[in-house]
Amino acid sequence: MTEGYRDQFLREGLLDPTPRGAEVELAVGRVRVHFAPADREVRVPAGVSVFDAASWNGIAIDSTCGGHGTCRKCRIRVLDGPAPVSRLDVRAFSPEQLRQGWRLACLAAAHGDLAVEVPPLVTRPKAATVGVGRQVILRPAIQKRYLKLAEPTLADQTSDLERLLAALDDLQLRVDLHALRRLPAALRASDYTITAVVVDDVLIDVEPGDSTARRYAIAFDLGTTTVVATLLDTATGTPVAVRSMLNKQQPFGADVITRISATMLDPEAIERLQTLAQDTLDELAADVCKQGEVNPAEVYEIALAGNATMTHLVLGVPPEPLGVAPFILSTRHWPELLAADVGVRVHPRARAVVFPSLGAYVGGDVVAGMLASGMDRDKRLRLFIDVGTNCEIVLGDGERILTTAAPAGPAFEGAAIRCGMRAADGAIEVVRVADGQLRLQVIGDVEPRGLCGSGLVDAVAELLTAGLIDRSGRFVPADRARELAPTLADRLTEIDGERIFVLHWGGVGEVREAIYLSQRDVRELQFAKAAISTGWSLLAEELGVTPRSIQQVLLAGSFGSYLSPANAIKIGLVPRLSVLRIVHAGNVAGEGAKMALLSVRERSGAAALLEEVRYVELSDRPDFNDRFVDQLAFPA
Amino acid sequence: MTEGYRDQFLREGLLDPTPRGAEVELAVGRVRVHFAPADREVRVPAGVSVFDAASWNGIAIDSTCGGHGTCRKCRIRVLDGPAPVSRLDVRAFSPEQLRQGWRLACLAAAHGDLAVEVPPLVTRPKAATVGVGRQVILRPAIQKRYLKLAEPTLADQTSDLERLLAALDDLQLRVDLHALRRLPAALRASDYTITAVVVDDVLIDVEPGDSTARRYAIAFDLGTTTVVATLLDTATGTPVAVRSMLNKQQPFGADVITRISATMLDPEAIERLQTLAQDTLDELAADVCKQGEVNPAEVYEIALAGNATMTHLVLGVPPEPLGVAPFILSTRHWPELLAADVGVRVHPRARAVVFPSLGAYVGGDVVAGMLASGMDRDKRLRLFIDVGTNCEIVLGDGERILTTAAPAGPAFEGAAIRCGMRAADGAIEVVRVADGQLRLQVIGDVEPRGLCGSGLVDAVAELLTAGLIDRSGRFVPADRARELAPTLADRLTEIDGERIFVLHWGGVGEVREAIYLSQRDVRELQFAKAAISTGWSLLAEELGVTPRSIQQVLLAGSFGSYLSPANAIKIGLVPRLSVLRIVHAGNVAGEGAKMALLSVRERSGAAALLEEVRYVELSDRPDFNDRFVDQLAFPA
Repeated sequence: MTEGYRDQFLREGLLDPTPRGAEVELAVGRVRVHFAPADREVRVPAGVSVFDAASWNGIAIDSTCGGHGTCRKCRIRVLDGPAPVSRLDVRAFSPEQLRQGWRLACLAAAHGDLAVEVPPLVTRPKAATVGVGRQVILRPAIQKRYLKLAEPTLADQTSDLERLLAALDDLQLRVDLHALRRLPAALRASDYTITAVVVDDVLIDVEPGDSTARRYAIAFDLGTTTVVATLLDTATGTPVAVRSMLNKQQPFGADVITRISATMLDPEAIERLQTLAQDTLDELAADVCKQGEVNPAEVYEIALAGNATMTHLVLGVPPEPLGVAPFILSTRHWPELLAADVGVRVHPRARAVVFPSLGAYVGGDVVAGMLASGMDRDKRLRLFIDVGTNCEIVLGDGERILTTAAPAGPAFEGAAIRCGMRAADGAIEVVRVADGQLRLQVIGDVEPRGLCGSGLVDAVAELLTAGLIDRSGRFVPADRARELAPTLADRLTEIDGERIFVLHWGGVGEVREAIYLSQRDVRELQFAKAAISTGWSLLAEELGVTPRSIQQVLLAGSFGSYLSPANAIKIGLVPRLSVLRIVHAGNVAGEGAKMALLSVRERSGAAALLEEVRYVELSDRPDFNDRFVDQLAFPA
Repeated sequence: MTEGYRDQFLREGLLDPTPRGAEVELAVGRVRVHFAPADREVRVPAGVSVFDAASWNGIAIDSTCGGHGTCRKCRIRVLDGPAPVSRLDVRAFSPEQLRQGWRLACLAAAHGDLAVEVPPLVTRPKAATVGVGRQVILRPAIQKRYLKLAEPTLADQTSDLERLLAALDDLQLRVDLHALRRLPAALRASDYTITAVVVDDVLIDVEPGDSTARRYAIAFDLGTTTVVATLLDTATGTPVAVRSMLNKQQPFGADVITRISATMLDPEAIERLQTLAQDTLDELAADVCKQGEVNPAEVYEIALAGNATMTHLVLGVPPEPLGVAPFILSTRHWPELLAADVGVRVHPRARAVVFPSLGAYVGGDVVAGMLASGMDRDKRLRLFIDVGTNCEIVLGDGERILTTAAPAGPAFEGAAIRCGMRAADGAIEVVRVADGQLRLQVIGDVEPRGLCGSGLVDAVAELLTAGLIDRSGRFVPADRARELAPTLADRLTEIDGERIFVLHWGGVGEVREAIYLSQRDVRELQFAKAAISTGWSLLAEELGVTPRSIQQVLLAGSFGSYLSPANAIKIGLVPRLSVLRIVHAGNVAGEGAKMALLSVRERSGAAALLEEVRYVELSDRPDFNDRFVDQLAFPA
């Protein structure tokens, strides 16, 4: 969906063609691992396996099992440092090889500084590119094992389950009753050759014969407005189908506050909101399965990234404490969940990964976004902004990471704007002034019906450039306008005593049928951008850095993807940096959800983020209002 | 229910009035713990806490929390042996005390031989007597904790769940989504004073205010014929209500084989059998809650002991492999289960303990029975017999324990017997010959309608004594009968060419209206008792002991409770021992289920039994048939 605009922005030179994520470096960590012959040294958290330390840093080690300890291909030699022998090492190596330091990299944890030698590749590691240009070694929680078991006899009355688990003795499994119910028939229907379906450490099913090739998962980005589902083939890491739809909770209000309010006014509202969110997810799941020609029963895991309110509602947890001071989450980390707990009818015992929240207004969507954009690993000072009604801001250098939420209001959604509308067909989304002429780009290439968030930012920025709006946000007087921009000045007029700038005259040239930008609209945008810039300027202060020293700004969320970096700088929504440093990060929440499904290591990285990132509450800061007023003016 | 007969047997001197279980001693184990000043030395498995080692052996150590590490009352001093300092010891003792060896007994694991000193009691440990005279220290999996939490502020935005878990930091808890859904409202409804409901290591609910006094559990004995439910107050260990009813699966057949066959013939039968068993349990649960005036939502855990077929059926696991050679269980240990998984509507997230099975015909009921009768702890050579259609036999001395199943057939249930009936109103259950007169005891004191299992055994035994049946099992010729027992001889007659002995003539003295014992009935009983005695004689041989050296015989199950020990010896169903050594053990399956609910230690003892007990399969023994034929005659 966003690709067309991305291409256009690339052509216009507004977007940096280099994917920044490709440059990520590991930043948090306590031990050093030196890899020969590549002569690369990396720092990783103590306890990380050598295999992961290598794969996180793009150093390829042979593996066909993705680091599960089963293929025994990830042989490395420890040249220096602690290297205890694991239970699988003694099967994989001779005593002489063990003495020489040979170990399986996936089981060799780096508990101290290490120097290791990596033999040349024989097979290629399986990896997928997700998130902001991140390469993820495939290590999904979903595992399938094809097994040929011996038939029982009177002399060997081992129970069905113990027979199966003995063949999976490298895993410490819990067993779902569903799998046990299916086991006796599955074994006897297929001459004791079956496929065990494991998710994390749970045996959730057994399937007769060999079904190892088919293992799917669905990543959900549960937005307040839009919900996106991606069906993933976890065997290859590739997306099979993507669908999006409006959140069916829309009738309860456009933003999270109106939905929380609904649950306060009506005790039955929470159940209805839960059902509507669950129906949205379930319908999308059915859609992507149909589109991808996958049986829903072959989907064994889902991941869900949403803001705290959406996550509470879809799980049926009361959201009221999120909506009133002191803004309290029911929990940061969610307990073990099933897809059924969020109403998604795929495999009946499919499991669900729901992203944890950092705070009432820095939810799982932002945690997923941080994961996808490598906020915890990139050593550059980076600013992450998910622009929306509630705007989440993250600032960090990999070592120290701060986050906060800024109440931007609904301007970016097109609400509270005179001619505002959502980014749908008929919305003016790009506004340019060139050679004294106004040029509009309209979604769907149809007659303009209104102005969406990106169009609003563009219109204000272009009129600032043209001088028709001054730094304080006022439309200049008519005579000054004629002087500065004679070809545009007649568009500056009034309606009901309020000054407006007409963007599109409509059929008969009547001002009442026109699409315009009003003085009050400019004020709304000023409030919104001031909330955001107050947020990141306070975070910068907390971190002891200046906004100008920020090396990269990631604009995230569906709105961020459409925003012109140059105009975002122009109105002061982002710090004044080279436009090349402003990067569209795309749907990072959805990308984070995909990463969690493709790699258990990345998933645990998301959980670790909660300990690494500090949430800064702005609402109780005495200096917030002064700062906010200071930020209302547009930059010089 | 059985108490009346127990009293009667006691009066008759047929039952040993001393509860044998009171003498149990710990027999399995690897380390020695010496207790001063009592000067008692016990052997326990390495790793067992000193607290448990003491309580298992009747040595009282102060405790009000039941060994959960919270009351800090269980102070002991380690005089000799390894005594690492636990995390709670440093809070409970001064450095000087720690140097002197003071430790909390509940956290002090005996990893080597120990000598400890136990201070005199200040409070009494809470214990309950269950099983075969066993004293169980209360340590239920259900725990309730009343907590007063600090209210959140903008300066302390800790999430609701983390706030709660911080107050439970001595427990490593998993959290049920249900508890999380209730948490925000519960906290805010009660000024942050709530009761946490924990079962095992799972937080299943939170309740506003202090509800710690109310914590209930239900123990089920799921029999093929009869199902018994006991509502337990886990705070005191006392049973609050007991109810029983027929298993609603009865229409599918009287024994497990007919029910397994039903699932083979009709693919939908398993679902119907599952529903019927679940309905039985659920109806009983509602009954005991009503009787005990307990809200079903206050029942947080259930335990279920049943044979392997019943357990498979109630869980919806296909039972077919149990019914055909090589007789394979789907599993020995069941996975983590909820009461809802067996259809019991109590607390929606109540958990379920389902007893594991040793083999297809030595099920969870027998494992529960072994637990209740202390088969793993009593050092005497003991024989445990659960008499029924399928008869389970256990022989052991605490160190070595063997078990097997004997296909006794339905004679003991009154089936396949000409005038047979279940032990219900109208069934002749006791038959005695005294002073040449036949005396009958009929259930319900009504007109006799038939002969139940215990009446069958009595009738045959008494006629053996009177000489009317010879050792080979034949009725003696009429003239010989007149010689031996003139007052009874006219009862020996014929019907349709088969010889019979009339027990009750009915209204008009017509043989066709009589209740009688037929020659074929005697044969059925011979087959049944031969199967059983072949079983225990083979187990004795495997163990290298003679049946005469057995020190105690436990007759278990509802049938065993009604059986006359003297007549059981007479017909050779049990070894020829002093009648005082034959003990009615009662409903040991139900008692075992209660023990599992009252003590997590006892529960893990049940799981441990599976590793300690060896299952001996009789059906593939080449000498089984010869042995069986040898056992058909009655003892001299």
